[in-house]
Amino acid sequence: MTGFINYHKVLIVGLGLIGGSYAQKLSALGFEVGALARRQQTLDFALEKGFIAHGQTEVTREYVSRFDLVVFALYPHTFVEWIGKYQDYLKRGAVLTDVTGVKRSIVPTIQGMLREDLEFVPAHPMAGRELSGVENSDCRIFADANYIVTPTERNSPEGIELVRSLGCILGFRHIAVLSPEEHDEMIGFLSQLTHCIAVSLMTCKDSEHLAEYTGDSFRDLTRIARINEHMWTELFLANKDELLSQMDLFAGQFARMRDALAGSDIETLKEMMRLSTQRRGYFDKK
Amino acid sequence: MTGFINYHKVLIVGLGLIGGSYAQKLSALGFEVGALARRQQTLDFALEKGFIAHGQTEVTREYVSRFDLVVFALYPHTFVEWIGKYQDYLKRGAVLTDVTGVKRSIVPTIQGMLREDLEFVPAHPMAGRELSGVENSDCRIFADANYIVTPTERNSPEGIELVRSLGCILGFRHIAVLSPEEHDEMIGFLSQLTHCIAVSLMTCKDSEHLAEYTGDSFRDLTRIARINEHMWTELFLANKDELLSQMDLFAGQFARMRDALAGSDIETLKEMMRLSTQRRGYFDKK
Repeated sequence: MTGFINYHKVLIVGLGLIGGSYAQKLSALGFEVGALARRQQTLDFALEKGFIAHGQTEVTREYVSRFDLVVFALYPHTFVEWIGKYQDYLKRGAVLTDVTGVKRSIVPTIQGMLREDLEFVPAHPMAGRELSGVENSDCRIFADANYIVTPTERNSPEGIELVRSLGCILGFRHIAVLSPEEHDEMIGFLSQLTHCIAVSLMTCKDSEHLAEYTGDSFRDLTRIARINEHMWTELFLANKDELLSQMDLFAGQFARMRDALAGSDIETLKEMMRLSTQRRGYFDKK
Repeated sequence: MTGFINYHKVLIVGLGLIGGSYAQKLSALGFEVGALARRQQTLDFALEKGFIAHGQTEVTREYVSRFDLVVFALYPHTFVEWIGKYQDYLKRGAVLTDVTGVKRSIVPTIQGMLREDLEFVPAHPMAGRELSGVENSDCRIFADANYIVTPTERNSPEGIELVRSLGCILGFRHIAVLSPEEHDEMIGFLSQLTHCIAVSLMTCKDSEHLAEYTGDSFRDLTRIARINEHMWTELFLANKDELLSQMDLFAGQFARMRDALAGSDIETLKEMMRLSTQRRGYFDKK
């Protein structure tokens, strides 16, 4: 835990699936982990499981000022509201990080409103499950996942290094540093667009009677169609321009294939399939 | 092997991935399996592995007339050509079946041209891999897959039962009977449309630099983007009208989501996600 000698007390703000998984892992590593949650039963669960040492539903100066490192695991708009209301309570020199799935619309807002002595180093743990809530927390989901730090010119090398190290000790397979813009383009294509596709496909027809014929292709394609509508709607809107351009790109290629089929244009169909086959090779798990 | 007492000698026409897997399983079950393949090295491989007892590259009356049950594992147009050229060689009273992934454009053609004493009972084993060829044959792919018999009014109850039983002994998890029309609608939506989506997504951008950030959602969605362009182009064209209507249905829902996002129509986005989440529940593996 080199580098964390001054950051031994960690506050998790928001004990959902990801916040809970952070708490679980950090407690197991020997950190003193506290939490703020909306409901007492969330805290009780986390206390019982040993994910946290203590926690509160009320945000108080006395409690918040005890922590050196604060991880925000909230919806984007709640995160911004929290900083606006409570940043005065934070300990002098504390380092803040987050788990938010969009960056361009959040990072400059938070960094722009933050006290001079605090540093916010944004990060996105690209891990999740089709379930939510602290009851489904499981820090093993980090083992096969990516962790992206998205700093700006306002960040210090030490702050970036600390939050990068946090990804390491949480056990992520791959750690990367991207700008907020690069992050949002990447996430718009790889994650948000794929969720749009899965949801659109799943809403096409009342497919209950088809379930018994379903092979792995349909099942794989729609696994992510089970979706938390509040979180994802907020994430989509927070990355709207980027996601719209990725959706248009996909719709264009899909229309190209449709027109090739309608016109029995065998060469275009085969060309698209060859390109697709070749590119899919990049994505084989190493 | 009750029911197969008169169908002990099985000919596999076409030793690719599926034909080879049929041969492997049927030989293991004690059938006498012969094969017709285009290349001697395909036969040599299958002989060496014990998938077949014998085989030929040349189609001769002497060889073909020895078999009671004939499984066609060919591309659709090659299957039609074969029947046109060689059906005279088939043993009197032989039962024919196939593995073709489209039915409406094939079944009436074959049944319409067939000798009176022969019976063709169409079937579709919904199993596959992202690899092709007899070298990749593996009858374990049947264990978690569906097998659909698609008879018409020209079929006899005995013929249907025989081909249904074939699915059972091959080890398929689920066996169903559908009309060729129902089959093609189902396959257009569940299988062909999903392949169109995966291929279109994969051709969107040169995504090599994105591979290191790719989580499971993109990987799952594009697994089937590795595709045999000759076979799938032929299957798409053979089910063109049905597939076009499924593609239009999907494109419509995708455009609905895009417009909801563009207009920040939160309620429509959430409604689609709720519907999608609810319907995805039908598809959980039992």
